[in-house]
Formats: sequence, C-alpha cells, structure tokens
Amino acid sequence: IKQNSRSNKIATHKLKKMIAQTPPPLYYAVIFTSVRTPGDNGYAEMAQQMVALAQQQDGFLGMESAREDIGITVSYWKDLASIEKWRNHIDHTIARNQGRSIWYSKFKTRIAFVERNNEFNR
Amino acid sequence: IKQNSRSNKIATHKLKKMIAQTPPPLYYAVIFTSVRTPGDNGYAEMAQQMVALAQQQDGFLGMESAREDIGITVSYWKDLASIEKWRNHIDHTIARNQGRSIWYSKFKTRIAFVERNNEFNR
Repeated sequence: IKQNSRSNKIATHKLKKMIAQTPPPLYYAVIFTSVRTPGDNGYAEMAQQMVALAQQQDGFLGMESAREDIGITVSYWKDLASIEKWRNHIDHTIARNQGRSIWYSKFKTRIAFVERNNEFNR
Repeated sequence: IKQNSRSNKIATHKLKKMIAQTPPPLYYAVIFTSVRTPGDNGYAEMAQQMVALAQQQDGFLGMESAREDIGITVSYWKDLASIEKWRNHIDHTIARNQGRSIWYSKFKTRIAFVERNNEFNR
C-alpha cells in the first residue's frame, strides 16, 4: 500500500521548469552538470520520477533545471544531512547507477552553501 | 588601444557549452536563474560579450549555461572579492541594467560557497 501511495504521488507530479522559490539563505545547493549519451533509453521517465521523489524528501527546498548542450540541474536543500539522506535513498541510488552505466557520458556534482541571494521581478 | 585590444579578444571568444573544468574546492559559485522576455532585442550578442568579458576577470574559474523554459548560468570564482569586482565592472553593470529593463522578466542570483565536488567520466 505504501508503495502504491508513493507511486500515485509520483504520477501526479510534473517536472516544473521555473525559478525555485527558496527561503532566504542560509541553505545548500547541489549543482549537477551533465552531458547525456545519445537516445532516451528510459531517461525522461526516470528523471521525472526522481524530481517527484526529491520533492518528497525532508529538507528539499526547490529545484531548477535546463538542458541544451549540457544539462544543469540545481536542487536546494535545508542542510548537508538532508542532501546525504537523499543521496542514500535506495531509488535515487538505483537511478544514479543507471545514470553512470547508461544515460550520462559525463557529469559533475558540486555541493555549495548558499550565502546570499537577490531577486528581480518585473 | 586598450579598448580595441579588448574588443578583439571578445570577438575571438565563443559561448562554450560544456562542464566547467574548475579546480578542486574551495571556491565560489554564482547561480543565475532567469526567465527571458520574448524576442532577442540584442540579448544573444550581449550575452556572448559578457561571457568573454567574464573569462578575462581575475578569479574567474569557469562557467556553465543552459536554457529551456528557464535559463541557468553558473559561474565559478576564486573568492567573494572577485565576484564583487566583476559585479562592479562597468560593462557588466550596463548589461545588467539592460537585463532588468529589456531582457529578463525575472531572475534570481544566488552566491554559494562550493565545499565539495564529484566527477564522472565514461
């Protein structure tokens, strides 16, 4: 039942492409920059599931994503502990292993402490 | 002559879309997330000039950029002083003002201290 409930939640989520409405600093950012291998090979579906799953984690604050020649995904987190917990989530670990074996030709992950922010709205 | 020399340098640069080859942490990241207004209105040319100009600044370590619904540009810097100096560069200030008045409907800038990184290459 738990599995079902989670799957339903995931199905209702969509990959939102907008500026993340994070709280005022201090918080953490995970900057994930990647180059994809050719073809989809199940990537799009898994990516959407991972976004949905990330949003359900304790300490998740937001996510931003765009891809051209490279993909940049920045996720925002309350603290290092919540990043570490998400890193060790079993479904995330499986997806990450598939990322290394199938979807990515290279990637770089940077963990950074957000000290300030500044916003402009027309 | 100085102006000419710099303009020539700028002309030879291209907007590189790759994973930035930054040194090992610690260093800083400026995460710039934006939504564009419709139309180019001189944006592409100015963006390319700003990339070229940023690359010439003291403390510049690299830059990554991608745009879909939102644009994400992450630039990497040696320290806060080099970020501050680039922020106050007159050409950058002019471009930023045009960004507010013409090119962006909204943006968010986050300054973050990169503590760790991890890399994968196939």
